[in-house]
Amino acid sequence: MARANKVVLAYSGGVDTSVCIPYLKNEWGVAEVITFAADLGQGDELEPIRLKALASGASEAIVGDLITPFINEFAFPAIRANGLYEGRYPLSTALARPLIARRLVEIAREMGADAVAHGCTGKGNDQVRFDVAIGALAPELKVLTPAREWGMSREETIAYGERCGIPAPVSKKSPYSIDLNLLGRSIEAGSLEDPDVEPPEEIYAMTSSVEAAPATAELVEIRFEQGNPIAINGIELDPVALIRKANALAGAHGFGRLDMIENRVVGIKSREIYETPGLLLLIRAHQELESLTLAADVLRTKRQLESQWADLVYQGLWFGPLKEAIDAFINCSQSTVNGTVRLKLHKGNATVVGRSSANNSLYVPDMATYGGEDQFNHLAAEGFIYVWGLPIRLWAAAQRRNGHHG
Amino acid sequence: MARANKVVLAYSGGVDTSVCIPYLKNEWGVAEVITFAADLGQGDELEPIRLKALASGASEAIVGDLITPFINEFAFPAIRANGLYEGRYPLSTALARPLIARRLVEIAREMGADAVAHGCTGKGNDQVRFDVAIGALAPELKVLTPAREWGMSREETIAYGERCGIPAPVSKKSPYSIDLNLLGRSIEAGSLEDPDVEPPEEIYAMTSSVEAAPATAELVEIRFEQGNPIAINGIELDPVALIRKANALAGAHGFGRLDMIENRVVGIKSREIYETPGLLLLIRAHQELESLTLAADVLRTKRQLESQWADLVYQGLWFGPLKEAIDAFINCSQSTVNGTVRLKLHKGNATVVGRSSANNSLYVPDMATYGGEDQFNHLAAEGFIYVWGLPIRLWAAAQRRNGHHG
Amino acid sequence: MARANKVVLAYSGGVDTSVCIPYLKNEWGVAEVITFAADLGQGDELEPIRLKALASGASEAIVGDLITPFINEFAFPAIRANGLYEGRYPLSTALARPLIARRLVEIAREMGADAVAHGCTGKGNDQVRFDVAIGALAPELKVLTPAREWGMSREETIAYGERCGIPAPVSKKSPYSIDLNLLGRSIEAGSLEDPDVEPPEEIYAMTSSVEAAPATAELVEIRFEQGNPIAINGIELDPVALIRKANALAGAHGFGRLDMIENRVVGIKSREIYETPGLLLLIRAHQELESLTLAADVLRTKRQLESQWADLVYQGLWFGPLKEAIDAFINCSQSTVNGTVRLKLHKGNATVVGRSSANNSLYVPDMATYGGEDQFNHLAAEGFIYVWGLPIRLWAAAQRRNGHHG
Amino acid sequence: MARANKVVLAYSGGVDTSVCIPYLKNEWGVAEVITFAADLGQGDELEPIRLKALASGASEAIVGDLITPFINEFAFPAIRANGLYEGRYPLSTALARPLIARRLVEIAREMGADAVAHGCTGKGNDQVRFDVAIGALAPELKVLTPAREWGMSREETIAYGERCGIPAPVSKKSPYSIDLNLLGRSIEAGSLEDPDVEPPEEIYAMTSSVEAAPATAELVEIRFEQGNPIAINGIELDPVALIRKANALAGAHGFGRLDMIENRVVGIKSREIYETPGLLLLIRAHQELESLTLAADVLRTKRQLESQWADLVYQGLWFGPLKEAIDAFINCSQSTVNGTVRLKLHKGNATVVGRSSANNSLYVPDMATYGGEDQFNHLAAEGFIYVWGLPIRLWAAAQRRNGHHG
Repeated sequence: MARANKVVLAYSGGVDTSVCIPYLKNEWGVAEVITFAADLGQGDELEPIRLKALASGASEAIVGDLITPFINEFAFPAIRANGLYEGRYPLSTALARPLIARRLVEIAREMGADAVAHGCTGKGNDQVRFDVAIGALAPELKVLTPAREWGMSREETIAYGERCGIPAPVSKKSPYSIDLNLLGRSIEAGSLEDPDVEPPEEIYAMTSSVEAAPATAELVEIRFEQGNPIAINGIELDPVALIRKANALAGAHGFGRLDMIENRVVGIKSREIYETPGLLLLIRAHQELESLTLAADVLRTKRQLESQWADLVYQGLWFGPLKEAIDAFINCSQSTVNGTVRLKLHKGNATVVGRSSANNSLYVPDMATYGGEDQFNHLAAEGFIYVWGLPIRLWAAAQRRNGHHG
Repeated sequence: MARANKVVLAYSGGVDTSVCIPYLKNEWGVAEVITFAADLGQGDELEPIRLKALASGASEAIVGDLITPFINEFAFPAIRANGLYEGRYPLSTALARPLIARRLVEIAREMGADAVAHGCTGKGNDQVRFDVAIGALAPELKVLTPAREWGMSREETIAYGERCGIPAPVSKKSPYSIDLNLLGRSIEAGSLEDPDVEPPEEIYAMTSSVEAAPATAELVEIRFEQGNPIAINGIELDPVALIRKANALAGAHGFGRLDMIENRVVGIKSREIYETPGLLLLIRAHQELESLTLAADVLRTKRQLESQWADLVYQGLWFGPLKEAIDAFINCSQSTVNGTVRLKLHKGNATVVGRSSANNSLYVPDMATYGGEDQFNHLAAEGFIYVWGLPIRLWAAAQRRNGHHG
Repeated sequence: MARANKVVLAYSGGVDTSVCIPYLKNEWGVAEVITFAADLGQGDELEPIRLKALASGASEAIVGDLITPFINEFAFPAIRANGLYEGRYPLSTALARPLIARRLVEIAREMGADAVAHGCTGKGNDQVRFDVAIGALAPELKVLTPAREWGMSREETIAYGERCGIPAPVSKKSPYSIDLNLLGRSIEAGSLEDPDVEPPEEIYAMTSSVEAAPATAELVEIRFEQGNPIAINGIELDPVALIRKANALAGAHGFGRLDMIENRVVGIKSREIYETPGLLLLIRAHQELESLTLAADVLRTKRQLESQWADLVYQGLWFGPLKEAIDAFINCSQSTVNGTVRLKLHKGNATVVGRSSANNSLYVPDMATYGGEDQFNHLAAEGFIYVWGLPIRLWAAAQRRNGHHG
Repeated sequence: MARANKVVLAYSGGVDTSVCIPYLKNEWGVAEVITFAADLGQGDELEPIRLKALASGASEAIVGDLITPFINEFAFPAIRANGLYEGRYPLSTALARPLIARRLVEIAREMGADAVAHGCTGKGNDQVRFDVAIGALAPELKVLTPAREWGMSREETIAYGERCGIPAPVSKKSPYSIDLNLLGRSIEAGSLEDPDVEPPEEIYAMTSSVEAAPATAELVEIRFEQGNPIAINGIELDPVALIRKANALAGAHGFGRLDMIENRVVGIKSREIYETPGLLLLIRAHQELESLTLAADVLRTKRQLESQWADLVYQGLWFGPLKEAIDAFINCSQSTVNGTVRLKLHKGNATVVGRSSANNSLYVPDMATYGGEDQFNHLAAEGFIYVWGLPIRLWAAAQRRNGHHG
């Protein structure tokens, strides 16, 4: 029996997703494969991809520019959330998955398809993100995952494709597995699988090395409104242009590389290299502005929820109710995150050298309220410390009664 | 009535703590002031300080080398705890306070004193740390804080001192308030009080600027046993020597500066500059080794407890029961934190370029257990995702029943 | 110099707040004292209180019915937050304080007063709640606290009052300190100060004892919309009527008493007795409905934020930014908390015996989605467990390599 | 090919695990099945179970009394952890699973078996607990789960058994699925699957109904040392005897029933009934003693870790590194949890009426340290509140600058 009748396949133009087209038809009895290729700012030409899909047997090949919703609806909330998985990775790849899933579902509904498909294998995070997002948005749709099931090696896949008229890739495959979009690049596999080996310079494309970065520092000033970056160096930019500018600035100075051991959703550790210059720069600046404009207790609780937010996004739960509720907290907190952060970009560093907020700074430079009141310096501090230390004194007193000595 | 009879005063040799001596005797009726000056690696000569205390009216002037306990009992636990206040400040000053308090209490008991004293003012964190620590260790001792109460301006303080035979400082006072010890330097006040003004280069003493740092990168390899750093570049070092070496290496390459808005215990934000090259380098390396050797759930919970640990230390609660219990968690977790981290120091960066653990790595490079089992690539992933996404599918289904659309 | 010119005093009609009136005028030079007495459902007649204030020297005596805002704006959000301090106390007294503070500030502004005042002493939580709330709402207003400063014993206070024409209380003072409003009663002091002594039956007024409660159980059915209770036993009630009904039902069956050791804001433990029958009943039912209608991860995170919410309210931070942001999270979560909970009230117990939600139940009784798919029973479970247990197997394998045995 | 050669099967004597024996041999080619039946205090006779295993085809039938390790190594740590899943379920069934798994692994190693087996199906938590525990303890052993895979209905299972000489059960199967051991009973299925239906009285065996419970209250006094209960009503009891006594006392008075919607590991909600009288009584008393003997901050952090502890145990992660580290925290905290709690058992209630700790109480009844110091009542409170409210005042001031009104 056919696994599905009409399938919308997430399509990249690579050999794996190309082979998915005849495989779905030949092996799983799918009548019709419609491909969808998204422009997320990765820099590929979409027209050749479209043509390749048709040549590979797609009945229809759709391409779509998703850059604007990607930045507006996914990247900017991540900046407001300071979304850093395990404190470091700004989710550049993870943020794209729910958007692609949403578009696949929309197309499937428009076209009357009964399934969507993707080319992820069974070892990664993206399969989880796609499958869970699709299940949340459209439980009525089947999710077909040929590459997770077919068990073919790369050579076998290429051979299968050639038998179906899909030409073998002309250039030698890179030893690395790379995902990219406007927010950054994720690089794994090859020599990187040894966590004790330094990543070679060749893997980077958006960031300069420290060595090659300019000898002279460059100042950059980022203005935020309600937690959203809106201007760089005094020039207001729409979100997409702002991300491009931030990428260019930070990348040129070698800022934004990550080399980390991370914990995948599927229970294993992996070694990942990322370069996400603009996103990291903006998050760094945003955190700094928050340190000026958010109260201490809001900061502490937001930092914990941020960590949960990043987990949810990394783990494929973008469309779930917990993310929605955490977003409500975050949105509420951001009303006062207004102001400007100045950073010095230099030789891999993005060092904050100034921050200001005309209306929302909670830093009181002259400490008028604080130092001005005579009473504070002596009695308030003393009284505070008396109460602050009371529990520990009571505990210590009990310890001493029992013969413990401090 | 006299506030106390015999007082042990934490003494730095500066004009404020010097003036405390006659002030305690003349204004508060103290019969005898014994001073204690600690060597915490700040680089001061202790003998002149001792003589100055006597010249200022101390009946006895004690000096003591606390460097070894400072590093062994305070800095190394902080490394194991990745102790970073508000995610950034490695507590270099805060860690010294409970140790000084403990020594003050010991001396007071040895000498039969009925009070201890310190020269902190009412605006900072150190008064909290001293007062709470002393209260925990020796509730029977009074804590006298002349500088918090006397209400004299700096000029008045100097004049008061001169009347008591304490010479005015010869050099012009630095506009900055600086605390330093072997772990680092804390710098505040002066032009730094404007958070939008970049710190001038002159305030730094342990770290090079990015500009002045060597053009060539330097590799450093740090070996850990049970979470403690024990060797640098293959050479085993005792803790104090290891910290000195780490300071020299990181400082030379301009790594270890911080410029932050932080939330003080007493309810205000302040702008602080720190340079703590060695400690930050070691914590960075330690975190990286943990990412290789700790399970994902241990990492998540430890990261939360680390944040609490840093809060407790910053807020003066070193000797309390919560820190003790968190230390028990941390110590348990560190048994597997064994291995080596290689970093590249260059132009303000300390970039991890490799990490390994012969016996405790949880990264399985060949993914033998993982990729080897045929079943995983397909069925395990599928089954996992089925269950992983089940709650969100059930929730989404309920939403749809109510007319919400994904 | 006068501490203030015109003061609005929170007034209860008791001897302490009555004596505050002449004390403010005579000792602190206040020209005019305006009193404010609030009806929060405590059952006092307000007219005699008003007259007593005037007789005690108030220039004006204002009374106001705050019951409706108390329940709508304070009690209902607490139900949605399942606000239980230290997991138990439903904040019946704490919730009233920010409302009184808000009204005091409004009156002060309307009347052109330059200060507000209250009669709290220095050992409790209420002083913190009043002072912090007033400071947040109106930093320009002074807060005067005569009873915290005057240092008079009860006898001295009465004597001072008599000298000012305030008659001594006719009835002997209860040995207990009691605060009450429509949500419940807080009882402390007297024999209750020994935490090993059982509270005597006489202290209770809203709840029956287990012994005296009816021999027969009574069923109660509570309907919620968006987390708010809206009907009891099928009858829709406005919030105030609903709380009254819940009090009557639960109280009659002896449900809603608490005897606990709690941690006050000012650093000490105290022993407190509460009876809050209706509020506890409603929170119990609300929690149960949430267990049916909220996803597991939302429940876990909400439970943590609830605990913070209760801390904030207990500690006087109602008007702060963190509570606002947590409320945003809670409000978002409550959209699906619709349904009905049935409880059996009997002999001190309120046992849930049924819960349902027509549109938002996440419990799938026939497990259609779950059990129906052949694949689940075997492969999905197996695949899930494979991945779920992978980290622990990898960790255990590393342990064994090092000679540890499971 | 045979799935395994020699298998140790967790055996209950019921029809499912009996059928597993011939199934493993006939369908999966297992040469030898050894059964293991554990006495966990569930009250079954083990000798008939042993004989039934042999009659069903087991080559060897082992029975073992695990009651003492169950209580000492599993129940008592749960009391110290106040282990309550989702705040309610004391894990009575979950705690038994890792112990059985450990014994299965030991037997497998002693007997040279290459696999262990259990009869869990694919919908519950126990399969997760068994599989993960076995994988952690003995990754070299296969885990066979016939009942998860065979896909037979109950009738088919019985028929299969009859064909293999296993007599059909004589009594009609209870409509409920029940698991029991000394700590309690877990009841599900049948009419309980409708969460809006009250559980019938017939399902309970360890607890009286409120109606049938004695009219007269009974006091019980529980003494703890280092967090472990050691005496009831003044009589020291070994752990097993103490649990039996607690069960008898609480059960007679109708305390210890739970009816809840809980979130299973496999992503669904289920409705569960528990009766765990003794364990709940002891946890209730233990919590109360902690409220007297632990500092506020320790209590807050322990409460959070307790919730994680319960999650770990419920979710099958007993033998993992996070539980080990949390146990270290808990053990450290328990050194001061010494004292006695008195409770009144009556009509389903277990009400604490007194608590005391000769040496470790942090409640200071006369508040000597607190009230005694003149300074506190006025200046300390005022100073504390000044600092405590400072962040909120600064925030409110900034809000007002922007035109927001409190």
